[in-house]
Amino acid sequence: MLKYQAIANEIKQFIEDNDLQQGHKLPVLESLMSQFKASKSTIINALDLLEKKGDVYQVRGSGIFVRRHRRKGYINLLSNQGFKKDLDNFQITSEVIELDVRKPNSEVADSLNIHIHDDVYYVKRIRYINGKTLCLEESFFNKAIVTYLNKEIVSESIFNYIQEGLGLKIGFSDLYIHVDKLTAEEGKYLGLNEGVPKLFAETIFHLTNGQPFDFSKVTYNYEQSHFFIQENLHD
Amino acid sequence: MLKYQAIANEIKQFIEDNDLQQGHKLPVLESLMSQFKASKSTIINALDLLEKKGDVYQVRGSGIFVRRHRRKGYINLLSNQGFKKDLDNFQITSEVIELDVRKPNSEVADSLNIHIHDDVYYVKRIRYINGKTLCLEESFFNKAIVTYLNKEIVSESIFNYIQEGLGLKIGFSDLYIHVDKLTAEEGKYLGLNEGVPKLFAETIFHLTNGQPFDFSKVTYNYEQSHFFIQENLHD
Repeated sequence: MLKYQAIANEIKQFIEDNDLQQGHKLPVLESLMSQFKASKSTIINALDLLEKKGDVYQVRGSGIFVRRHRRKGYINLLSNQGFKKDLDNFQITSEVIELDVRKPNSEVADSLNIHIHDDVYYVKRIRYINGKTLCLEESFFNKAIVTYLNKEIVSESIFNYIQEGLGLKIGFSDLYIHVDKLTAEEGKYLGLNEGVPKLFAETIFHLTNGQPFDFSKVTYNYEQSHFFIQENLHD
Repeated sequence: MLKYQAIANEIKQFIEDNDLQQGHKLPVLESLMSQFKASKSTIINALDLLEKKGDVYQVRGSGIFVRRHRRKGYINLLSNQGFKKDLDNFQITSEVIELDVRKPNSEVADSLNIHIHDDVYYVKRIRYINGKTLCLEESFFNKAIVTYLNKEIVSESIFNYIQEGLGLKIGFSDLYIHVDKLTAEEGKYLGLNEGVPKLFAETIFHLTNGQPFDFSKVTYNYEQSHFFIQENLHD
């Protein structure tokens, strides 16, 4: 972790520890420089990162302010804003249903930009939030990139392992969502009746070099699915 | 519009005109500098903007590549990625159901950070996509900021008017979504039966100075609601 990233984390921690609300003005640049013993450019990089992550907003000529939404119980839909981070009061667990190496069908091969004769790791999990079903998740990993998985790894955070264990750099993702009616099969896993609403999310995750490595399909239990997205609208 | 923004638009147009696909390598910096008659820093700013908007990705030491998803018919859920832009082949129209000035209830007042005795513009519209209902939209604008609206304005793009007509600078938004069952009342507007799935999205839009100016509640017709979100995962 670079210094500006560490300082960004410290500033975020400072906001949370002091329970600062949206619109609260942060100390001026000079104060932050002395508080964190860092150069002007390091502090500016840290603040730019926090702005990108939606934790502060900067008003030219006026200062830096806390950005923080006020609704409790909403899960951050975008993974760069931290799936677990916003779930302070939640317990997320995973139950692994299937884990194997298989050949992809043409939809999966196409999404991962590989051939149907190539290998993928297939992972099927149910994820729970406070003991209730949150979602049914099926993921397909290009085995040429994600070279090894086992049951212990996939029962925890796969992405932590991919980054820290395999040293891969995750770059960007394309997320497709739509709303539909739950099938009987999905209902079985989620403990819901056929025909109730569902949120269905498909994501293609790419490395920083543009290679897709993970295609995932997630069916959310509509009763647990309250999502939050932060957006910056100006250029 | 600043020069780098204009050049970003031109590069995007170039990608679309030539139907360049994801992973296609763009010309090197020097070529772009001479093609667009611009300095190195202007081109870099333009490319950074395009990366932020999800139109290109940059691989250190390797070059700049086109980023472009391959699924047709998905609407971009985040407005900074352009609601209409991705709907090239779609016709979006609005039918205004109600437009008036009223006092907000406490939920609206709280979301807009105003008092229940302050005035808001209330706009209720049905939006259509290719003649089918896309969504039912209710918006509450803080009248102290959005000082004037009329039926002609709200039957077009309200945000264009706010930016170009009123000269306001839109900064960031907080988006809350969940999935639920459609009510009979909503079904009436959307031409659907009570109890079918819906996507319900609430957004608080802020100016660049942090002031909330618009609180909107949108109920989407699940049959038309295929959404796309691009995300950058690295810092």
